[in-house]
Amino acid sequence: MEKPLKVGLAGLGTVGAATVALLQRHAEALADRCGRPIVLTAVSARDRSRDRGVDLSGTTWFDDPAALAAEADIDVFVELMGGEGGSAAASVRAALARGLPVVTANKALLAAEGNELAAIADAAGISIGFEAAVAGGIPIVRTLREALAGNAVSRVYGILNGTCNYILTRMEKEGLDFGQCLAEAQRLGYAEADPTFDVEGFDTAHKLSILTALAFGTEVDAGAIHIEGISSITPADIEAADELGYRIKLLGVASRTDTGIEQRVHPTMVPKSSAIARIDGVLNAVAVDADAVGEIVLVGPGAGGAATASSVVGDIADVAAGRSLPAFGRKAERLQPYRPAQMRAHAGGYYVRMLVRDRPGAFATVAARMGEHGISLESIVQRRRAPKADAPGSAVPADTQPIMMITYETTEAAMRDALKAVAASEVVEGVPRMIRIEKLG
Amino acid sequence: MEKPLKVGLAGLGTVGAATVALLQRHAEALADRCGRPIVLTAVSARDRSRDRGVDLSGTTWFDDPAALAAEADIDVFVELMGGEGGSAAASVRAALARGLPVVTANKALLAAEGNELAAIADAAGISIGFEAAVAGGIPIVRTLREALAGNAVSRVYGILNGTCNYILTRMEKEGLDFGQCLAEAQRLGYAEADPTFDVEGFDTAHKLSILTALAFGTEVDAGAIHIEGISSITPADIEAADELGYRIKLLGVASRTDTGIEQRVHPTMVPKSSAIARIDGVLNAVAVDADAVGEIVLVGPGAGGAATASSVVGDIADVAAGRSLPAFGRKAERLQPYRPAQMRAHAGGYYVRMLVRDRPGAFATVAARMGEHGISLESIVQRRRAPKADAPGSAVPADTQPIMMITYETTEAAMRDALKAVAASEVVEGVPRMIRIEKLG
Repeated sequence: MEKPLKVGLAGLGTVGAATVALLQRHAEALADRCGRPIVLTAVSARDRSRDRGVDLSGTTWFDDPAALAAEADIDVFVELMGGEGGSAAASVRAALARGLPVVTANKALLAAEGNELAAIADAAGISIGFEAAVAGGIPIVRTLREALAGNAVSRVYGILNGTCNYILTRMEKEGLDFGQCLAEAQRLGYAEADPTFDVEGFDTAHKLSILTALAFGTEVDAGAIHIEGISSITPADIEAADELGYRIKLLGVASRTDTGIEQRVHPTMVPKSSAIARIDGVLNAVAVDADAVGEIVLVGPGAGGAATASSVVGDIADVAAGRSLPAFGRKAERLQPYRPAQMRAHAGGYYVRMLVRDRPGAFATVAARMGEHGISLESIVQRRRAPKADAPGSAVPADTQPIMMITYETTEAAMRDALKAVAASEVVEGVPRMIRIEKLG
Repeated sequence: MEKPLKVGLAGLGTVGAATVALLQRHAEALADRCGRPIVLTAVSARDRSRDRGVDLSGTTWFDDPAALAAEADIDVFVELMGGEGGSAAASVRAALARGLPVVTANKALLAAEGNELAAIADAAGISIGFEAAVAGGIPIVRTLREALAGNAVSRVYGILNGTCNYILTRMEKEGLDFGQCLAEAQRLGYAEADPTFDVEGFDTAHKLSILTALAFGTEVDAGAIHIEGISSITPADIEAADELGYRIKLLGVASRTDTGIEQRVHPTMVPKSSAIARIDGVLNAVAVDADAVGEIVLVGPGAGGAATASSVVGDIADVAAGRSLPAFGRKAERLQPYRPAQMRAHAGGYYVRMLVRDRPGAFATVAARMGEHGISLESIVQRRRAPKADAPGSAVPADTQPIMMITYETTEAAMRDALKAVAASEVVEGVPRMIRIEKLG
């Protein structure tokens, strides 16, 4: 048996502690699989005195993760601190500078500096493993990077944030509003005290930017992503979706279009019959449409210490076994020129909801404005109900009724212009809202 | 750029031709990914004159695949002929003997000779890639072998045969019987003229034997699999399953039990709410339960030229990029001693259907026989209906009614003994039948 792979690990939170536990629990099987033992030799975390329920005897403690990365007697550096920039970035750079392969679960870091880190790793001929950075325990990085090497991907999309999916599932099953479900998610530890990062779609966007690079062989470009969160979704939207045959999910979608690569994160109406519509609670799911394989869908836990550690250990095993490849599946210098599609060029169907005033010809006016922008309606739900209480000081009469519409395929530009025209007319109250529909097989 | 990887390919059927097409269509991207071009240099098939719609110019033709494997100027041998033994086995052995890595989609060969071929490959320090042999385009081999390296798997199961799933789906959706759906499957090319291999579960068993070795680090042992096919499933079973909250799927299941590794292929009742219950038509799905990741499910096309070729090309790309590992994730000599569980020790719930004679106390007798074997009933469906036409010469009265039961967890031994006792009593007509229930999250 060859000499052991010495692992240095920075960050002993939930995922870090679970990684240590797995490396120890499955030491024998890992040695069998990799042809050599994997041994944890150095660790770093904020508080040395804290009991994390794992055995750290035999490891060297570093208060400074960057010092661990730069100086410890290790063969691979595992970064599980998280966070863009700061210690995580400094220690990953220090490890790469020494020619050490890196394993990380840090999506924020990769979204911000992935291209540069990949180029550094390429120059040193080493790998950066980040299966754990996207969709936790689901092996989507490996699938895009290796299994689908013989495919041209046309679209990759998924439910990449368990917090949002938990909230939307609760809203749907129990008819609760966003605020109630968020509070419940916070109580259960599924959402942070400041939930902005999750519920406004930024976490999904970080993960999507990585999937896009892997799927299309382009540079990571998180800045090009159109992002909308779920905080504006109402029970009325969810009810209307149900009536119309849809569910609402926060999707990250990257697709190759005629005008370039489109990356978007937004609440999405998905047909109830689709696999993605049935992913409930904190689960994640990622689907890939590609020319050879057709469609494949991977479902599993998107977060949690042990599930994420499963992916971390898989990447460490790759290093131990000597399996290496460029971070994004091809050398950074070979990542293709990147042409981001403009969101206004997005083509698809839309769900639209608005409050129409109770007056003769109101709906005809709405339909006329849509028609003028070339938008045809596939279905309409009009339900008489008690009007919403007006906002204080509103001059709009309370006699309104909600109308929900599904359009045939149109463009984002046409839809935005049509809604602006509708809003400017006298017949609707407030701002019409729309949710994009994703066409799924 | 390094020198090209020269590929020799034997078998130009649907999958072979699709593999050639993919290697050519994505030549540039593959070279980017692997750091070197992949070039097809030698091919072999039965009929040289046949037009397969792919460009074979620049390749050397071999009439004998074993001669190609033994003599062609190649770096990897791709076997897509199929079939246990014969040319496939001879040519794979010839390639390994030369120290050439092998990529194959041949589940029958691996089920029969996988252990020995893996040992030969280990000794030569080369790999055998067989992602395409199990579940077509779904990357389950890679997932078990690499992504889940840090897990102890407790169960792997799935829908591994599209023909059976197509037939069961049609039976369920349209209320047709097995024979009608089989005929339809044959008409559409989903089933062979002699469908035995698919519908009696042998194809699923071959695939399961490979998954078992990967999941549990044991030797391939297809002979230890309990196999039942779907030809005896009736519309009445499917209807009863529906009423009781289940669907019937042909599953391959391998699990670690107290008495050893259990491998079984049989029609299975799965809860309607489970992911596996929703896999319709020719799709495949594989689920893995493991200690770190929890449960992951992979869904995709289990057959078809392009989808299967996707997996073949992924494996070829591994060879080109120099990524190699033992066939079953660890060296053949390190595959663990294998203790097959006895089917009689299987524990689970059961669905039972029988025709009970229309006489006082009949059902009480059945319940008593079950109780004597320690079997408790969770639910019972009794529906009065026209009795089935008796078989010619049958002495059994026509006045019977079907009873469907779901049991609480019991053992296979208890169930078999109970059904024997019930059948021996005077109150049932014919042989009671049972379908195992799989507990799913």
